[in-house]
Amino acid sequence: MTETAAQILQLDPDRLFPADPTIRALARELYEPVADAPIYSPHGHVDPALLLDNAPFGDPAELLITPDHYVLRLLHATGVSLGDLGRGDAATPPDGREIWRLLCRNWYVFAGTPVRYWLESQLAEILGVTVRPSEESADRLYDELSELLQSDEFRPRTLFDRFKINVLATTDDPADDLAAHRALAADPTFTGRVLPTFRADGYLDPSVVGWPDRLARLAEAAGSGTDSYRGLIEALRARRRYFIEHGATATDNGPFDAWGTPLPDNEAERIHAAGLAGTASVEDGVAYRRNLLYQLAAMSADDGLVMQLHPGVHRSHHAPSLARYGTDAGHDLPAVGGYTEPLRRILNDFGTDANFRLVLFTVDETTFSREIAPLAGFYPSVYAGAPWWFLDTPAAIGRYRAAVTDSAGFYKTSGFIDDTRAFLSIPARHDMSRRTDAVYLAELVATHQLDLAEAHTIAQDLVTTIPKTVFRL
Amino acid sequence: MTETAAQILQLDPDRLFPADPTIRALARELYEPVADAPIYSPHGHVDPALLLDNAPFGDPAELLITPDHYVLRLLHATGVSLGDLGRGDAATPPDGREIWRLLCRNWYVFAGTPVRYWLESQLAEILGVTVRPSEESADRLYDELSELLQSDEFRPRTLFDRFKINVLATTDDPADDLAAHRALAADPTFTGRVLPTFRADGYLDPSVVGWPDRLARLAEAAGSGTDSYRGLIEALRARRRYFIEHGATATDNGPFDAWGTPLPDNEAERIHAAGLAGTASVEDGVAYRRNLLYQLAAMSADDGLVMQLHPGVHRSHHAPSLARYGTDAGHDLPAVGGYTEPLRRILNDFGTDANFRLVLFTVDETTFSREIAPLAGFYPSVYAGAPWWFLDTPAAIGRYRAAVTDSAGFYKTSGFIDDTRAFLSIPARHDMSRRTDAVYLAELVATHQLDLAEAHTIAQDLVTTIPKTVFRL
Amino acid sequence: MTETAAQILQLDPDRLFPADPTIRALARELYEPVADAPIYSPHGHVDPALLLDNAPFGDPAELLITPDHYVLRLLHATGVSLGDLGRGDAATPPDGREIWRLLCRNWYVFAGTPVRYWLESQLAEILGVTVRPSEESADRLYDELSELLQSDEFRPRTLFDRFKINVLATTDDPADDLAAHRALAADPTFTGRVLPTFRADGYLDPSVVGWPDRLARLAEAAGSGTDSYRGLIEALRARRRYFIEHGATATDNGPFDAWGTPLPDNEAERIHAAGLAGTASVEDGVAYRRNLLYQLAAMSADDGLVMQLHPGVHRSHHAPSLARYGTDAGHDLPAVGGYTEPLRRILNDFGTDANFRLVLFTVDETTFSREIAPLAGFYPSVYAGAPWWFLDTPAAIGRYRAAVTDSAGFYKTSGFIDDTRAFLSIPARHDMSRRTDAVYLAELVATHQLDLAEAHTIAQDLVTTIPKTVFRL
Repeated sequence: MTETAAQILQLDPDRLFPADPTIRALARELYEPVADAPIYSPHGHVDPALLLDNAPFGDPAELLITPDHYVLRLLHATGVSLGDLGRGDAATPPDGREIWRLLCRNWYVFAGTPVRYWLESQLAEILGVTVRPSEESADRLYDELSELLQSDEFRPRTLFDRFKINVLATTDDPADDLAAHRALAADPTFTGRVLPTFRADGYLDPSVVGWPDRLARLAEAAGSGTDSYRGLIEALRARRRYFIEHGATATDNGPFDAWGTPLPDNEAERIHAAGLAGTASVEDGVAYRRNLLYQLAAMSADDGLVMQLHPGVHRSHHAPSLARYGTDAGHDLPAVGGYTEPLRRILNDFGTDANFRLVLFTVDETTFSREIAPLAGFYPSVYAGAPWWFLDTPAAIGRYRAAVTDSAGFYKTSGFIDDTRAFLSIPARHDMSRRTDAVYLAELVATHQLDLAEAHTIAQDLVTTIPKTVFRL
Repeated sequence: MTETAAQILQLDPDRLFPADPTIRALARELYEPVADAPIYSPHGHVDPALLLDNAPFGDPAELLITPDHYVLRLLHATGVSLGDLGRGDAATPPDGREIWRLLCRNWYVFAGTPVRYWLESQLAEILGVTVRPSEESADRLYDELSELLQSDEFRPRTLFDRFKINVLATTDDPADDLAAHRALAADPTFTGRVLPTFRADGYLDPSVVGWPDRLARLAEAAGSGTDSYRGLIEALRARRRYFIEHGATATDNGPFDAWGTPLPDNEAERIHAAGLAGTASVEDGVAYRRNLLYQLAAMSADDGLVMQLHPGVHRSHHAPSLARYGTDAGHDLPAVGGYTEPLRRILNDFGTDANFRLVLFTVDETTFSREIAPLAGFYPSVYAGAPWWFLDTPAAIGRYRAAVTDSAGFYKTSGFIDDTRAFLSIPARHDMSRRTDAVYLAELVATHQLDLAEAHTIAQDLVTTIPKTVFRL
Repeated sequence: MTETAAQILQLDPDRLFPADPTIRALARELYEPVADAPIYSPHGHVDPALLLDNAPFGDPAELLITPDHYVLRLLHATGVSLGDLGRGDAATPPDGREIWRLLCRNWYVFAGTPVRYWLESQLAEILGVTVRPSEESADRLYDELSELLQSDEFRPRTLFDRFKINVLATTDDPADDLAAHRALAADPTFTGRVLPTFRADGYLDPSVVGWPDRLARLAEAAGSGTDSYRGLIEALRARRRYFIEHGATATDNGPFDAWGTPLPDNEAERIHAAGLAGTASVEDGVAYRRNLLYQLAAMSADDGLVMQLHPGVHRSHHAPSLARYGTDAGHDLPAVGGYTEPLRRILNDFGTDANFRLVLFTVDETTFSREIAPLAGFYPSVYAGAPWWFLDTPAAIGRYRAAVTDSAGFYKTSGFIDDTRAFLSIPARHDMSRRTDAVYLAELVATHQLDLAEAHTIAQDLVTTIPKTVFRL
């Protein structure tokens, strides 16, 4: 069967490079030496069991659609129900082939989006697909991919090597025993570095349902009590030590806002007790959470775990979808950001402490030039985190560099993070970032703000020295 | 008389296309097939009586200056009084020629602005003017244009056909009897589609002067009482049915903010009574208005009228100018926008209802990537409205596409709306949008993020399928 | 000694011009006629004593590093202590050579930043340096520059002439006797125009430490009492008259926010008395400050001094650094801006007064298209101030033009201000602005939105007529 031009899927080697021949040539020249550089992935959400088990991936829908809220959300916005995409616990879940057809039939809605870009990269570069998804090609692609995914070539560990992942950080609950990490580290047949990251978000707000249960599990993991505020602090410290022993270099923090404001101990104890009794108010919850963010900063200044902060997300905006399909179903939405005033106390106390390190992420891009870059441009501890969620796209990465470089240069930025739970998209995302940074550097060179030799050094540093240094890898 | 180069007015066929030859060629190729496509204008402020009466336009000032707050505002900012531009009710209003001279003399202040772009388009393309406005050319242009405007070629209906307007939506008060719309529909000599749009803004705030009078007029139109909250709700429902019978497919809503929060009936009745008694407080007014926005959303979910929402405007900022020159005199100003939190209740209740449709407009462009596109990228009911007022410009439209495509693609955007009361500017505005979208698509093609065939399809859909579908035309 | 290419410092004549040959040729053509135009500097922080004394500059560190918070902040962010950069009052302050080495060693962190751009311009164009700063070249550069700075060629007055500065405005306390300005004006050997600017920020907030002392000094300067609110108002009026007599045409105002809200006299008197007694609350301070901003606007409407307003800076964010190193040490940070609502009262009362003039600056670039340009596009008194602090960079100036031109055109913008205390950077900053504006104009010409002749006129006006008119020079 011969495809028409419109049906062929083929990646252009110059993709994302501007048309201008001077810029394109410079961008290509700057990109080529880093195109195949190993990947440092210091912030992501891949399950370590994936690499431990090394089982074949499931069907194409299970691999590329159902778990990826980036894909789900635009299909849902087009009128496809989340249930038909495999979310929720239907008595008879939809067949993978049916889900795959929904993606292919609605392929047009992804035109111009980063989701299209990542999916095409994965299909063409990793899976060797040569035809575009469409209503016509859906079944054929599904059959081909299903077969492919059973082959040994596409097992997680083979891909881990093929992707040249030097470091992969996961995100883990403080109560997690890190069994998968331990088993991976002990496995002589696996030589990759897979590091846990300490994410204590579930313990911050005593007004939220389930808090006492989570505390109980944490107490068990820590081998010490969490029925007092002091106990919780001690348990968190103990678990951080445990994470550090198992390779962790960073914490991940996603509170609703960036305020870090210490409470007097007796007030913290009062709220803690109220939380255990189920009587903590919303205001109590906010005060306690802001206090814990401060305490987590203090712990980072003490134990040196890099503190990653990405506040400002309305989680699960659509209550009916939350009830039917659970969290991470595509309706988390950006809130208005704020850093300079909220972080004043933390930065006054730890901002010039050489042991403290704070990487600031945002989903509100107005904060790049107004708050994040100016903070990173003064405080030695602060780094401007790469564009994250909603902004981890070719266009937004360009705007990020344009917004932060004036105040923070390149060396106070974090290097790219892929932040993904879609294992196959890791190389596509890093490649996108390398191309986009090459374009930005090419424009500085072309306008004589930077010479080519220095631009080469920066392009290299952005994918090696900078992430290694910033995340203490 | 021969003009020097600087005096000649001539539109370049490649206007708005970037200099880069690759992008320019692609943009031209994408633009050409849609250049003469018919116009869908689903949101505007043209008076339907204009087409019913089909009388010649007045003098050039009356046509191009006095009613257009875009033109007025920058002349006023340059030191020209609104009275000298024909606003207000001076005993001896200024002569049209004098007003025209003021525009021509101050032509330089419009350099680089969209107002200049639209006026030049209208003068050159529609009115056949070949010389630039200037102090020297003012009288000659005024005489030529005055004569031209008396000719049959420049009557509204002839222009309506010449502009290839397929659908023109007006904006109308719920108490309006739609006589002009009915007469136009009944007129066998006019075959255009002119649709009313239901705009209930005047009924939302009981603390505002004149509310009881407006309610009385509405009661008369609806043939039912409005002296209770329930009565008002019923009257609005009745008038929506009436508008639907006369072709309406949408409502227009311009409250100060986007909050939609239902009140208990008895509280709404209390405020309603206070409003009639002239004792409603400002807080009462806000609560009642936010409740009514919610109720209007509920009605849209019920009757299927597309809800257009464009909050966030400080109306009549300069009180002395309001007192002397009335509303729409150029000092409405953008406020800070907010959608995600304010609309949570409406979207939780109706966001996935297939009958409900919500088009979000903004005058705060920070909301495009942070709020509007992410909402349109999840909720099937929500569409990212085209850049509107202050942002309906070549530069801002480009920023809009760059900001919304990542999360919403093209198919969750609304298509262009001209939002104008300046009838002659309709084709110039749509043409600007088609050119600007062609440039955006050309850049995606040139950077290999989209292939040319699909870009052609999108360019077509943006001016046909998309507005027709989104606005249920 | 021969340098390698990477070591040579050489400014490209086409720097900041885009690679596209059409745009580059147009930008160059538009830039060339204004490249050497005289400089109007209506807003800056150079000490007039510099020109009065005309003493040689100190060592290179004292000239280029220690006083410049732009340079300090990124070095500090890289881990260099402010003390090692010469700030604070160490018993043994660091040697200039050591400070210079710190800059050279950390030269890489400035890659792509405007600080690098300005420093390279100064080194190459003014000081004739031909080698890049680096660890290797540090000592050699230090020696060469130290020698050079002792030569007569590099005395302030020689440079003032060489820079073609037509007007230089300083920033001065109302209690200042303007002795340096008077002496300069009286000096027949100096023909430059150096104007004072009235900055009353220190008198606005009675809740701040030191307020009574500042009032006492002001009383002495004014020859009238400041122990009542009325007295303070009179003293400020008197000092404004004094400043006007000595050439001032403008005031400089940097309150935390833009609110201007009059207080009843008795309430203002109450807070005034509380301030003198040291019992004014924070809320008192805010109310009094906002009242005084209103009164200063009223005075401007009366005496015609142009009111420059640049609110929205968190001053001295890091308390420990403030305690050790004083103010202006690099940790002033941008706050969220707001103009439309805060300025409503001032603009309702004085916005259309021909004697009143208000230039709005911001460090929050979201306000350019949403607030500042729409205000400047209606109120004859309001001008959109050039990008200032954090935004006075090639990239941000481009974004500024793109954001403000739609609503305000070119003739309601202020023209460039350098806002610098680094005397040597004045020509580099103005040159950067001229190049960047030439690029913006070139793009309008290339996209046929402006013809070349008019673009030439605008490029000229932006550096002559516009600043002269806006600042009443």
